[in-house]
Amino acid sequence: MSILVQKFGGTSLGTVERIKAVAQKIMSTYDAGHQLVVVVSAMSGETDRLINLAKSVSTTPCDREYSVLVSTGEQVSMALLAMCLAQQGYPAKSYTGYQAGIVTDNCYRKARIQAVNCNLIKQDLEKQKIVIVAGFQGVDNDGSITTLGRGGSDTSAVALAAALNAVECQIYTDVAGVYTADPRIVTDARCLSHITFEEMLELASLGAKVLQKRSVEFAGKHKVVLRVLSSFEESAGTLITFEEVNMEQPLVSGITYNRNEAKLTIMGVPDMPGIQAKILEPIALSNIDIDMIIQNIGVDGTTDFTFTVNREEYQQASNILQDICSELGAEKVIGDTRIAKISLVGVGMRSHTGIASKMFHILGSEGISIQLISTSEIKVSVVVDEKYLELGVRALHSGFGLEKAAKEEYDPLPQPKVLAEQQKMS
Amino acid sequence: MSILVQKFGGTSLGTVERIKAVAQKIMSTYDAGHQLVVVVSAMSGETDRLINLAKSVSTTPCDREYSVLVSTGEQVSMALLAMCLAQQGYPAKSYTGYQAGIVTDNCYRKARIQAVNCNLIKQDLEKQKIVIVAGFQGVDNDGSITTLGRGGSDTSAVALAAALNAVECQIYTDVAGVYTADPRIVTDARCLSHITFEEMLELASLGAKVLQKRSVEFAGKHKVVLRVLSSFEESAGTLITFEEVNMEQPLVSGITYNRNEAKLTIMGVPDMPGIQAKILEPIALSNIDIDMIIQNIGVDGTTDFTFTVNREEYQQASNILQDICSELGAEKVIGDTRIAKISLVGVGMRSHTGIASKMFHILGSEGISIQLISTSEIKVSVVVDEKYLELGVRALHSGFGLEKAAKEEYDPLPQPKVLAEQQKMS
Repeated sequence: MSILVQKFGGTSLGTVERIKAVAQKIMSTYDAGHQLVVVVSAMSGETDRLINLAKSVSTTPCDREYSVLVSTGEQVSMALLAMCLAQQGYPAKSYTGYQAGIVTDNCYRKARIQAVNCNLIKQDLEKQKIVIVAGFQGVDNDGSITTLGRGGSDTSAVALAAALNAVECQIYTDVAGVYTADPRIVTDARCLSHITFEEMLELASLGAKVLQKRSVEFAGKHKVVLRVLSSFEESAGTLITFEEVNMEQPLVSGITYNRNEAKLTIMGVPDMPGIQAKILEPIALSNIDIDMIIQNIGVDGTTDFTFTVNREEYQQASNILQDICSELGAEKVIGDTRIAKISLVGVGMRSHTGIASKMFHILGSEGISIQLISTSEIKVSVVVDEKYLELGVRALHSGFGLEKAAKEEYDPLPQPKVLAEQQKMS
Repeated sequence: MSILVQKFGGTSLGTVERIKAVAQKIMSTYDAGHQLVVVVSAMSGETDRLINLAKSVSTTPCDREYSVLVSTGEQVSMALLAMCLAQQGYPAKSYTGYQAGIVTDNCYRKARIQAVNCNLIKQDLEKQKIVIVAGFQGVDNDGSITTLGRGGSDTSAVALAAALNAVECQIYTDVAGVYTADPRIVTDARCLSHITFEEMLELASLGAKVLQKRSVEFAGKHKVVLRVLSSFEESAGTLITFEEVNMEQPLVSGITYNRNEAKLTIMGVPDMPGIQAKILEPIALSNIDIDMIIQNIGVDGTTDFTFTVNREEYQQASNILQDICSELGAEKVIGDTRIAKISLVGVGMRSHTGIASKMFHILGSEGISIQLISTSEIKVSVVVDEKYLELGVRALHSGFGLEKAAKEEYDPLPQPKVLAEQQKMS
């Protein structure tokens, strides 16, 4: 079997016309001899419509029912796409998360996939059916519907690709692939033909919206070959590779940013062993994601402790932190939601020093002050005042020469392992 | 256990405000000590929205995917209602048709319930939860989603009431109960406090839209006590009883009509044994419902054979009948979609002759000619030109004196079997 998993996002399915266009794409791939599993998101706008309905009946919608509600969005898309294919005489069959055997834990709105029991799908693929699966949803061990959190359809696609041992998992989006920077900010940003898995993971973690972080992690863990490409144009997109394909790897592959974070600092914390856990555990228990964590050396037996959270979880985190502040006898809590994080990513950094200092120099010469710094082996992130976001990204893009293409070769789309095998089966 | 099943239709759940009002009603019933299973339809307009989406991608949407698509309507309602109850601190939990164990055959769009495996619901009721079930949907033995056909939520409610041995199945609608005639046509039509099960079955079959026919049949077969009442006002509604409660039963209980039928006649059919089956079998195999069947005595070895179908299935039935006509060497097929059926229903008819002749007399004196006649033990139906519908219904309502109430006592709503039992359980 030569199975391809293709995932189409909400923008690709946003109107009846676009659904028909996606159906055309699927029919060509099927006609070329691929066995096809298609994962769909809700039509764009639908999830928001459902969330607004939920908010209109409940200030804090209960998590189980929230998943029951919003999972209908993908169910509508999959049925429409399957109908559209059937209308053209193609043997399509839809699967909800439950029917596809996507088993998750019971953390309803941010559920994690535990198993994919895809025997039924395999049987249908052997019968040459086109399998359409609702992304973003699964079922827990009690039979309740769960959802994987926003963008979870990418994770559904990767999990299915892993379980089915697919040759490639193709994520169709509204952009041509992964860019050196956001083209809306940097006009001469370039679409990359390749990016390493580690770089992609950093980019996704750092806020590049092209792939959900958890889906990249999942792909890494299960060695799923990912490709990001456009629903609206013909191109080979960006292939996410497990090796460094180019010896002339540039130092920096891309620049990304995130303006959806907020920072919180608890000041004057007694500096004693275990204090960090006392601060972060209650935050983590409330299922609030923490991104950067920064602690500098203490003075006079106390220290300041800073971390960043998603902006929408800022208020909740702030309230929890106030309680912790009283308990620990710390001085006070301060915070700021008007921040932005800018990051440089590149596997080439590993073997080169000086990337960080060059970055700080470029930002400094534009008069941008840096509030927080965090680094890893292949990235440097800084937090700055939100108003400097665009200026900083553009300065870094040109400062590191990212607009100039390295010699690149695009990997062609995979060809089906074809006739011999098929004839054997029939 | 003293279980009540309550079903709320699309109009009762048509807006966020109405969903909140329904939640209030449910909370009162729950507070009074009932164990509650609530069956919901899609919000009014939602099913049509989904059907239009289907039509926009496919001229003849495939049945399996049609069910996948439209079943999301009820899933949205149940989640919103459960959230609304949870917001008020009530322990509500929603169930899709699959989760509720409603197993059907695989006739996707007109599926019939084969079993209700409601152990999970029973467990939740014992935990004092309010169970909210999506009406209109089930699951076949392959795990595919099925739908019961329009109005199928009534059947879902009755099937659950039967399986749970509920004390009563309450169908909440936008009218106060079952009327002697359609109040939109007959201004002095009366709401009945009681009606016998047989009468209700005839009324439902004859087109009174207050209850779906199949749900009444199901209730009769499983001895489920049904009550029809209004979501929008406080009243005891109409109780559907298994005995004739009133010795002074009026001859006629109600008048109903159906303008959604069309008639088809195959003329000059060779009059031989088995010919009727040859005509009707191909129609029935196409899943077209046939209502009235009329054949008069033949002349010269041939006969004319007439039947009525739903107007929307007229064209399909007509095409099939043309083929049959050629096969049998019959003369021709004629049809008419501009007809209406008017029916008198009443168990009192059994012991009284003369109802039919009085009916014909009343219609005749208004100048209405009768095209077809069909009778059963407790009803008389006539088909007339559609334009006489309102005139005929009003003339019969006043001619039989239905505006004058017999002495009636309303049955109070059931009281929970209460404290003693509950205390035993806790």
